[in-house]
Parts: sequence; structure tokens; C-alpha cells
Amino acid sequence: MDYAPLTPDTLAARLGGLPALTDRIGPSSGWQVAEVGDGNLNLVFIVTGSLGKIIVKQALPYIRLVGDSWPLPLNRAFFEYHALTRHAARDPGRVPEVYHFDEGQALIVMRYLSPHVILRKSVVKGVQHPNLARHMGVFLARSLFRGSALSLSGRVLREDMALFAANHALADISENLVFSDPYFAAKLNRHTPGLEPFIAPLRADRALRIAAQEAKHAFVSKTETLVHGDLHSGSLMVTAEDTQVIDPEFAIYGPFGFDVGMFMANLLLAFFAQSGHEDTPGGRDGYRAYLLGQLTQVWQVFAGEIRVLWQAERTGILYERSLFEDAGDKPGADAALVGVLRGIWVDAMGFCGVEMHRRILGLAHVEDLEAMADPARRVLAEARALEAGRIIATRRASLSLADLPALATDIDRSVAR
Amino acid sequence: MDYAPLTPDTLAARLGGLPALTDRIGPSSGWQVAEVGDGNLNLVFIVTGSLGKIIVKQALPYIRLVGDSWPLPLNRAFFEYHALTRHAARDPGRVPEVYHFDEGQALIVMRYLSPHVILRKSVVKGVQHPNLARHMGVFLARSLFRGSALSLSGRVLREDMALFAANHALADISENLVFSDPYFAAKLNRHTPGLEPFIAPLRADRALRIAAQEAKHAFVSKTETLVHGDLHSGSLMVTAEDTQVIDPEFAIYGPFGFDVGMFMANLLLAFFAQSGHEDTPGGRDGYRAYLLGQLTQVWQVFAGEIRVLWQAERTGILYERSLFEDAGDKPGADAALVGVLRGIWVDAMGFCGVEMHRRILGLAHVEDLEAMADPARRVLAEARALEAGRIIATRRASLSLADLPALATDIDRSVAR
Repeated sequence: MDYAPLTPDTLAARLGGLPALTDRIGPSSGWQVAEVGDGNLNLVFIVTGSLGKIIVKQALPYIRLVGDSWPLPLNRAFFEYHALTRHAARDPGRVPEVYHFDEGQALIVMRYLSPHVILRKSVVKGVQHPNLARHMGVFLARSLFRGSALSLSGRVLREDMALFAANHALADISENLVFSDPYFAAKLNRHTPGLEPFIAPLRADRALRIAAQEAKHAFVSKTETLVHGDLHSGSLMVTAEDTQVIDPEFAIYGPFGFDVGMFMANLLLAFFAQSGHEDTPGGRDGYRAYLLGQLTQVWQVFAGEIRVLWQAERTGILYERSLFEDAGDKPGADAALVGVLRGIWVDAMGFCGVEMHRRILGLAHVEDLEAMADPARRVLAEARALEAGRIIATRRASLSLADLPALATDIDRSVAR
Repeated sequence: MDYAPLTPDTLAARLGGLPALTDRIGPSSGWQVAEVGDGNLNLVFIVTGSLGKIIVKQALPYIRLVGDSWPLPLNRAFFEYHALTRHAARDPGRVPEVYHFDEGQALIVMRYLSPHVILRKSVVKGVQHPNLARHMGVFLARSLFRGSALSLSGRVLREDMALFAANHALADISENLVFSDPYFAAKLNRHTPGLEPFIAPLRADRALRIAAQEAKHAFVSKTETLVHGDLHSGSLMVTAEDTQVIDPEFAIYGPFGFDVGMFMANLLLAFFAQSGHEDTPGGRDGYRAYLLGQLTQVWQVFAGEIRVLWQAERTGILYERSLFEDAGDKPGADAALVGVLRGIWVDAMGFCGVEMHRRILGLAHVEDLEAMADPARRVLAEARALEAGRIIATRRASLSLADLPALATDIDRSVAR
């Protein structure tokens, strides 16, 4: 049949014949279906059968957040499916298992994650996930390294890049909403009332606008590896022990630093939102320290795992062993890695800064800040996050990892307090 | 019919029914056919009819230079055809007109250029082409700018990038022969006897091997624009007045700096070969000055034309006018351009250095040096070019345009003389 959106009423009739579902959750006669999509783009159903639960995710031909005035191609489900399979192969166990994919219906049937919750909601509540940075550092390193020319042949890399290049409609969203709209009066922008005195000087900052466009230049033209493309706290599901990476429908070839910087930005946004979630000043200081610890750790784990892969799996077309180890120059390979990691870091900080800005000035905001009950506190928190993002993006070439927690803490204590 | 290589005897029978040919050169009964391919990869025929001449170029399923032991896909003719049409649109008049393309036969029928000669042969003879740098600077700027995200939408850019990504077999040649083989004892390498004392220290230079791989990293992963991909002095045909850019079968999305650096490298290789083409020491000093003048001028014209296009045609998705000119900040756009040009320059110098090395140490050499009659002079000339390439590649981040002629002149006068 032609594409048609599922509903809770039609789902059992339309999917009840698929062994991929009935084998796992039992016959469709006993299914209960709930639509739970709270994201911006898609339908998401939890289907409960006699044997268990399963997730059915279906793309809509428009952006759910905005409505059918903003069409969006259904083939993003195709790219999500292909990204999920690559992530599953590159870092096994870190993404939900796919049971069924229907390209025509833009539909993916996958594992129901339980008792997982969306990381962002857990962060708003102040729950610590001690494995988060470790899991994410490893996931970032493995998914990005193993999708790059450090691991792959030129042919495999370019064929996969060509496949994902067709996901340009989703990239177009990032290109506008992340890199450009926040820095001028674009019509989809919105911001917290009262923040205006902090927005005008930000947009007047020429170095920042250039930095944001340099980051966009890297996003568009640095096709180093397959990136998740939307790796914020709403794209992670967590338990006390586990971390699962979901929703890679923005997947495309881009720079190593993109996912890294976006994830780090979301930790910083959570950090600056803490004043809205504590009963007494300092009541969330422990959680602040946890967030900054995760921020530092995710880069350390990422860089450490890249180092492991660099030595063990550098089988691609760049920095070939024939020129270093096989020529008796292992220190040369180590020196080259320093440069590669430095390049990733600088890119990541550019992306980190713009992600912080667009979540405050652009279309899509974050619950961490939106959930702050006191408008005055929220304006202050957002002003601080804007300033931190500005410094991170414009000073990215000289910033070090050790600078980040101190910078965040200083700004949190000083700006416009 | 299935693909079959043309021969002078079969060409008229096979192509005689094509109006694209007969309309231009007359009926096939009067054709005379000569195979003149002197390149590394293809068959090239000059077909002479009663009304004129025409070029028929056909790809072979292997690398002509090496033989059928090295297969190479015929679809490179497809990419050459598509690159020629894009170049014709982006800088009209600078590439030969295509009259007919047959994808199955990997065959392009195009304008016979007369009285043009291959630039490299003209350079060896010491002929000056005063328009060369101006033509090439404009061609580089227009072809690269108009093929990039500075000019195009994300969709058009990514669709075209995906098309050319399938040209990975040709990219693979560059990736091996340009960036890696020269820096270790690869089996396809060859060099002038007596050059050994200069090769060992070059290959021992860790910073150089890293610089070469960083250049390869940029070539593989910086898909900024459609590059010609093989823009050396053998890919240009010239008269006293005209310059024509041919043979873009290596076309792929790559960095702005690639074509720029490769062209500049070939001017420098010609410069260092001058001692082999003068009867008395200094006899070619005027030609040396001409080459260095062209070297400086091609960048100046390129940068100037990029500046014109930046202001007049920046209609793509990067450095959008909404963030600069339309926000009352034209100086911000100017400042952003400084960064973009700086990035292109640094990349170009990396490519320039490795191109100089691979033409001396790798598989494919240049006639400028090969034609030097005196082996001792040739070794010296090559040693100087190697050293210049080493400095250019490793010091690319701090080198300026003004440094280049002085650097070349100093090395030409001092190294191992």
C-alpha cells in the first residue's frame, strides 16, 4: 500500500501479520497501542502484547513540531535505519535492536527500552548516571572512527557518503536552525522574554558570527565520518546502568567533532539550568559537579578510545602504517594522532558553542531551561549559557579541556548576577 | 554494442553516422584518423575530415601507463564529461566544447584545439604565456567557488557530491600515488639514479610525513567543491593568447586548495628544471622570473576573483548575507573571507609540496625534469625541488605568498650546489 500514517486504531491490523512483531510480543489480537511521540518529527507507538512490548516509529511527511506547513521527506526513516545498523555494528549494544524496516511506510520496528528514560528528563530531575560519560565517550570514538577514512577504504567511505548525502533535507534543518538562525532575527526563532539585553550584543559580535559560520563550513564540507547528527540529551535513553543512543535520523557524513560538541553542549546547558532546579542556592552543587565531571570525562574517554583504535584498527587510507609503524616510526603515528585529536577538539568546541546558542535563541529549546519555573532565574541562566557558548566558540582554537569546567563555573557565578 | 576500444581503422565505421561529427568535419568517407594519446590513461584520436578536425577521447579499462595489470573503471569518462559541462558553465570558454558523449563506449567527442600545445611542452621550450596565470586564477576561482556551498544550495551540492563520489577509483590513484607512495619504498616508485642521498632524509622527516597525511586527510574528507583533480601542466593546452583546461577525469569533491596547489607545484617544478634547459648558467633567468611571476600572479588573481564572487555571488548556504551584509556588517563578511582564503592557502601549500615530491619520487614524473640531459644537473634540480616541497608542506601554516619566490630562488642557488 502507499504510505499512510499509522494510528493506534490501525496499527494492529496493518502490522499484525509481521513475525518480527508477533514472534516477540504475541499475536496482534491482544495488542494495546499507545502513541507516545514527544519529539519534534515523528510518530512513536508502544505496542504491548501478551509476550512483551515493542516500539514502532514512523516518519511523518512534515515536521511535527511545526505542522504540515513544513514538509520533510519520509526517507529520513531510511537513513535512521541505516545509521542504526552501522552504529550497532560499530559499538555493539549501544543502540536499540531493529526488528523490522519498511522503507515505503517509513517505519522502523525496534526494541522497547525499559526501564530506560530520556536522559534529559532524568537530568532535569537531578539523577546521576555514573556510566554516561564512559558509554558516550566509547560510543563517539567507535562510531566515528570506524565510519571514517581512518578505518575504511576510500571506496567504502565514498559509497556510504553518497548514500547519506541524500539525507540533505535533514542536514538543511541543522544548517539553518543550528548555525544561522540564532544569529539574526530569523522568523522561527523564539526566546525567553527578558533575555533581549543579552541577545543584541551576542548578535553584534562579529567574531562569533564568523565562528558560527566557520562551524557551519566544517559541518557542510568536512565529510570525515558518519555522524549521528542530533546527539543531544533527548536522543539518549538511560537507566542507572545503561545508555542507549536513539533517533539518528539526522545521520550524514560530517566532522568528527559534531556529535562530540553537541553532546558536550547539552551537558553545559544542563549545568547552567541548575539554579532553576534547586530549593536553596547551591542545593544542586553536587549535581553541577557531576555534570562538569561527565563533561571532562566524555572527552577523556573519547580521546582514550580513539587512541586505542588508532593503534589497533587504523586500517583505512589515512596516516597509513606503511608510513609510520612499518617504517620504524611509531612516535610519528603518535604525533600525527595529537594533530588529529586537536582538530576534532577545535571543531567540537565550535559546535558546542553554537548548540548552546541555538537551544536558547532558535526554534528548538531544551527542557532543562524551559522547565525553570522562575522567569528571572531562567533569563540569568540563559544569559550565562549564551556567554559560555560565545567564549567556547570564539576561543575554540586556544581552549583546553581543563579550561571548560572552570570557565563554566566562573560564568555561572559571575555573569549578571 | 558492448564497449570496445576504437582503433584508427574502426573509428570511421563506428562513429561515421553521428551528426555531431559529420556536421562539423564532413562525411566519414573522407576521414583520416590518428591516435595521439600520450597521456597515462586513455586513447585520443584526431579525426580529420573535409571540413575540419575533431578529438575523440576514449577511456581504456586499464591504466595505459602501467598496462592491463592495473584495471581502471571506464566510468571515468562519465565523470570527465560531467566535469567538462560544469567547468564550461562556471567559466565559459576555458574548456573544450563537448559535441557528443557515449557513456557505454566511455567516449567523448570534443573540440580540436588548434594551434594549442600542451603547456608542459611549451614550458620545456621556454615559451612564455603571459595570460596563463590570469586565465588560471580566474578559472580556479570560478570553477571552485561556483561548485561550492558558497554558491550552491545544500541539496544541489550534496547531490552532485554523491554523483562524483562514485569516481573513487580515480581518487584512489591520487590517494596512493600523490600522498603516500613518495614517502616510503612503494613498489611503483622510481627516481633518478644518484638522488638517493636526498631521498633518505626526506622520508626520515617525520613532520613531512605527517604533513603529507594531513594533506591527504584534507583531500579525502574536505568535500568543499568539485575539483579538477589533476590540474598539472599536462592538463592545460595553450597558445600565445589562450588557455584551455582539459582532462578532468579525476574530478571529485575535494578541498578548494587542491587544484590551486597542484598548479602552483607544476610552475615550481618547471622553475627548478631550468638549469637543464639553459646553454650557459643563468641563460634561462628570464624564464625563471616569468615562472615565479606567474606563480605569484595566479594566487593574486585567484584571490581577487574569489573576492569578486564572494561579494556578487555568495548565494549558497555558508557565510550568508543575512548574517553579515543584511545585518549591516559588510566588514564582517570581509573578515570572514580573510579566514576562508587563509584556509585555502594553507591547504594549497600542503598539496603543492606533496605534488612536487611525487613528481620526483613516485610513479608519474614530469617532462620538465625528465628532459634534462645532464644526469648530475637533474639530480641537483630534483634535490632542490624536493627541499622546496618539504619546506612548503611543513611550513604551510606560516608561509606567505611573498615567501614563495624568495624561497624558490634561494634554494635554487644554494642547495647542494
